[in-house]
Parts: sequence; structure tokens; C-alpha cells
Amino acid sequence: MLNISELYVLYRDYAKSATEGFSATPQGLYQPVQYILSIGGKATRPVLALAGCQLFSDELKAALPVAFGVEVFHNFSLVHDDIMDASPLRRGLPTVHQKYDNNTAILSGDAMLIIAYQYIGQSPASAFPAIFQAFNDAAIGVCEGQRLDMNFETQTQVAIADYLRMIELKTAVLLQGALKMGALAGGASLDLAAVVGNFGRDLGIAFQLQDDYLDTFGDAAKFGKRIGGDIVQNKKTYLYLRALELAATEPEMLQTLQHWYGQNTATELENTKIQAVTDIFRRLGVQDESRKMMEMYHQRALSHLQTLSQSVANQRIAPLYEIADFLLQREQ
Amino acid sequence: MLNISELYVLYRDYAKSATEGFSATPQGLYQPVQYILSIGGKATRPVLALAGCQLFSDELKAALPVAFGVEVFHNFSLVHDDIMDASPLRRGLPTVHQKYDNNTAILSGDAMLIIAYQYIGQSPASAFPAIFQAFNDAAIGVCEGQRLDMNFETQTQVAIADYLRMIELKTAVLLQGALKMGALAGGASLDLAAVVGNFGRDLGIAFQLQDDYLDTFGDAAKFGKRIGGDIVQNKKTYLYLRALELAATEPEMLQTLQHWYGQNTATELENTKIQAVTDIFRRLGVQDESRKMMEMYHQRALSHLQTLSQSVANQRIAPLYEIADFLLQREQ
Repeated sequence: MLNISELYVLYRDYAKSATEGFSATPQGLYQPVQYILSIGGKATRPVLALAGCQLFSDELKAALPVAFGVEVFHNFSLVHDDIMDASPLRRGLPTVHQKYDNNTAILSGDAMLIIAYQYIGQSPASAFPAIFQAFNDAAIGVCEGQRLDMNFETQTQVAIADYLRMIELKTAVLLQGALKMGALAGGASLDLAAVVGNFGRDLGIAFQLQDDYLDTFGDAAKFGKRIGGDIVQNKKTYLYLRALELAATEPEMLQTLQHWYGQNTATELENTKIQAVTDIFRRLGVQDESRKMMEMYHQRALSHLQTLSQSVANQRIAPLYEIADFLLQREQ
Repeated sequence: MLNISELYVLYRDYAKSATEGFSATPQGLYQPVQYILSIGGKATRPVLALAGCQLFSDELKAALPVAFGVEVFHNFSLVHDDIMDASPLRRGLPTVHQKYDNNTAILSGDAMLIIAYQYIGQSPASAFPAIFQAFNDAAIGVCEGQRLDMNFETQTQVAIADYLRMIELKTAVLLQGALKMGALAGGASLDLAAVVGNFGRDLGIAFQLQDDYLDTFGDAAKFGKRIGGDIVQNKKTYLYLRALELAATEPEMLQTLQHWYGQNTATELENTKIQAVTDIFRRLGVQDESRKMMEMYHQRALSHLQTLSQSVANQRIAPLYEIADFLLQREQ
């Protein structure tokens, strides 16, 4: 049984050789793909795919193409999202559209989506129809989630249920898909693959809630990003949306909150804004509620592993507990 | 046996109901998809897919999802190309990025690529692995062709062989793919499907050469676009590249050609430029050479139908001759 570090190494070696093997020409198409794939990341989704496979089989190589395909898809979505958000940096390095140009980022992103399908297509033939369907579902879900996220920027009212649906689509469905496809590549039945996928979905929602939480309440050194970025950008996260609800009976706090979120803050006022909004979040009890919400999704995720333990040996499930701990422990 | 008009009607009804059936939300994702699909076009690729199927089977509905998937893919590539070229109009109506915005066009284009795969996935199960492979090959080829086309804009030297490879990738591989996938959906062997595909590839190259030819030598009313547009934009078409070769021993014509192609022409000089360049093309004999080149690919395309007639009844092949006539007769 491989633990998550070992699964990561297995994936990394496969990904390295797959990436080097891309067609050499046209360079202008494939170099940006190699660039974005080479700047790394935690490879969360591929490790989930391999761990999903290992629940049912020791033939992990059956899931390697799916693991790589999902990571290429994830990076495709980052390349296009970065154009849409006009982000100059990704993992501390220039984004593809910044390093090359917008048209290159559009086109090489398109190629990545096709390359993702090429690798998904290398799955075991008997499992391929179900894997293909799971991939399509995840892929279109990610697009729907991105669209909802874009809509929220200009929408004045966003219900918390809609926010949760957005992060489920934008983030969680791909974790769900990675696990489900990995399980299918390992020979899982459709029913069991669905249970494994549900673990990924709830884990993904908990993870995104944590990401929002840490953006405001995290430790900058551990979080790896500036604290308060979401507040500066007036992002309608769970923290903000829940604060709006709780402030309904607190006119003063509501006014302050709306004052700060109603403006694009001048650089010199950013820290004042972060301080003021964070303070209101704390006073309204949003910090605690957010932690409870995360914990609820975390527990839901683990409940699917309980279900799974009726059909799968516990030692095979252990790496999934390990991943949940790894993803949900950065700062609690 | 259905002729091409009947195949078109069969496709159009399917496409209409498929397009109406797209998920309603998020509207911002799916409305642009419905918009671009609704503004039509000749549906060349879907008709080719159905005609490819009809070579082997009367169960044309087996090829309808492939036909629609190919058309959705084609429109995806138009939506993204129009962003890259900053084109305001498509078929006389606003392009997607013009009607909505760039980010919407990027994201809804991405969704279209996934929707294309969803429909390809509805092919008969026994033929799906080969269809999936053919679609991936065509899709990545189109991206490679678009990249080469972009490269040519800034490249000073373009070999004619490279130009032919570019139009093969950018235009012909999707016609090839449509026919091949349609044939496979109809139960063709891999070998015969390849022959059918080769017909599409050579037809596609002839068609693109004709498009370049008509852009300079066509009749504006029949061509549906302004004559001379490629010359105004300094596009490195077959006409221009061959003219450069032939002018190697004609310093005066070479100089005039390079003079005009070395500048972005002021609006009031455009007609003078078109006139001057067209005149040189004629004097160098490029007009005739271009027609011969088209004819060569046309004949090559027909030779694959000859090969096919050893295995398939002529009445089943007739619609493919009909399509070749239709596509290559706009003005010769």
C-alpha cells in the first residue's frame, strides 16, 4: 500500500515523462503547456485519483493517465481563469498570458483541454465509458462554477446556498471527479465509485471554505498568500455573506461592512479596510461559524469513508484519511 | 438514400432540438453557445459526417451526435479565433466576444469544447474508441493549425509546403475527422474509414485553396465577402507565397509586391493596393497555378472515392460527389 508521498512520487515521474513527450512543434503551442505544467503545485487531484484507484487495485498504473489528464485539465482552467482575472502571477511565477500573450494563453489552454481528453482516453477500456462520463460531468461543472463566480462579482445579493453551489462546481467537482475516475480505473463498481467521489466533493467544499477562512484569519507565512486579499477585492466569500446575514440586526456593523465592500479601496487604505472588516467578522461570530461549516463538510467527507469501509479494507482507505488531514490542517 | 439537402434537413432538426435542450443555467454560460450555434452556417461538417455514415448504413441517427459534436467543435474554434483576431462580425452578426465580452467568449468557448465531447460520446459504443481517437486527432490538429497560422503573421519566410500543412491542419483535418467519424458510426472498418477521411482531407485542402483564390479573383456577389481582403491584410496565402517564388527572377514585380506587403495600408490606398497586387499575381501566372493546385487536390479527393467504390455501392458514394461539386463550384 502506498502512502500519499509515495503516490505523489509515482505521479510526478509519470507526469514528467508525459510532459517531456509532448509534440515538439509548433513550439508556440506546446511550450506554454510545458511551462505551466512544470511550475508544479501540490498535485492534489492526481494523488486523489491514484488513491481512489488503490482502494480497489494495486495496479496503479491503470490510473496514471487519468491522474495526469485531470491535472492537465486543472491547469487548463488556471490558464484561462488567469486571463479572465488578468492575474500576473501564479505560484510566484508569471502566468501564461503574462509570459507569452493572451492569444497564446487562449490557444494553448484549448490544446490542454484536448490533451486532457487524450490522456483520459488511455484508461482501461472496460472502465472508459464511465470515466469519460465522469470527466465530462466534472469539466462542464468547472465551467459552470467559473461562470457563477463571475456572475457573483456584479450581483448585489448572493444567497449562501448559491455560494456553496458555486464552490462545489468550481472546486469540488474536480476533486470528486479525480477520485471517482481513479476508483473506476481500479475496477470499482459505479456505486462504490460514486461513494468515493462524494468523499472528494465534500472534502473539496471543506477545503474551499478553509481557503476562504485562511485568506482572512490565516497565518501569512503558512498560507503562502497575503492575508486579507479577498477583503481588498470585495470577494463575496462565505465569511462576507454570512456576516451580512448576521449584521441584519446590527445596523452599525452592517453599514461599516457595506461601506468597505462598496468601494475599490485605495492602496494606502487597504490595511485599514482589512482590519475593520476582519474585526466585524470576529464580532459577529463569523470566524467560529466558518470553522463549524468546514468541520461539517469535513465530517460529511469522512462519513463516506465509513460507508466505504463496509466494502473495502481499512488499510486501503488509510491514504484518503491521510489526504483529508493533509488538506484540512494547514491552520485550523 | 438521402441526398445532401435531405442530410442537411435531418441534421438541422437534430441540432435545433439539441441546442434548445442545453442546460438553462447559468444563462451567462449557455446563452452565448446557443447564440453562435443559432446563427447558422452551411453545416458542411455535419453533412459530411452523415454522408460518411450513409456509405455504410441507413441508420443515420447513429451519426447524428457525432455530426452535432463536430459542428459544436467547429463553432468553439470560431468563437476563440474571433477573439484572437479581434473580429467584430461573423456571418454578418456580432461575434460572441463582441456581443458579450472576451471573458464570456473564452469561457463559453471552453464549454463548447466539452459539449462537443459530450455529443461525440453518444456514438455507438462499439465504434466509440475509434471515433474518440479520430476526434482527438482532429481537435489537436486544428489547434496546431491555428498556431501555425498565427506564427506565419510574423514570419518573413513561409515555405509553400508549410502553408499547405497549415491549411491541412486548420481546415482539412476537421473535414477529414467528420467523414471518418461518420463512417465509423456507420460501422466502417478502420481501413475504409481512413479512405473516407482522406477524401475529406484533400477536399478540405482544395476548398481552402479555393477560398484563398476567390478572396482575390472571385465575384464579390457570389463570394459573400469583400474581394481583396487577404491582400489588404498582407495574408501569406498560396497566391502570395507562389508569387514570391515566381518573382525571384522579376526584380521589379518582386519589389512592388514586397512594397505593398510590407505595410499596413491606409484605407484610401486599399483599392490601389488590391489592384496592384492582383495585377502582379496575374502577370506571374499565379492565378492559373492556383487553379491547377486546387484541381490537383480535387482530383486526389475523387481518387479516394474511386478506391471506395471497390467496397461500397456507387449510389451510396453519390452524395460525396455531390458535396465535392457543391463545395468546389462557387466560382472556378
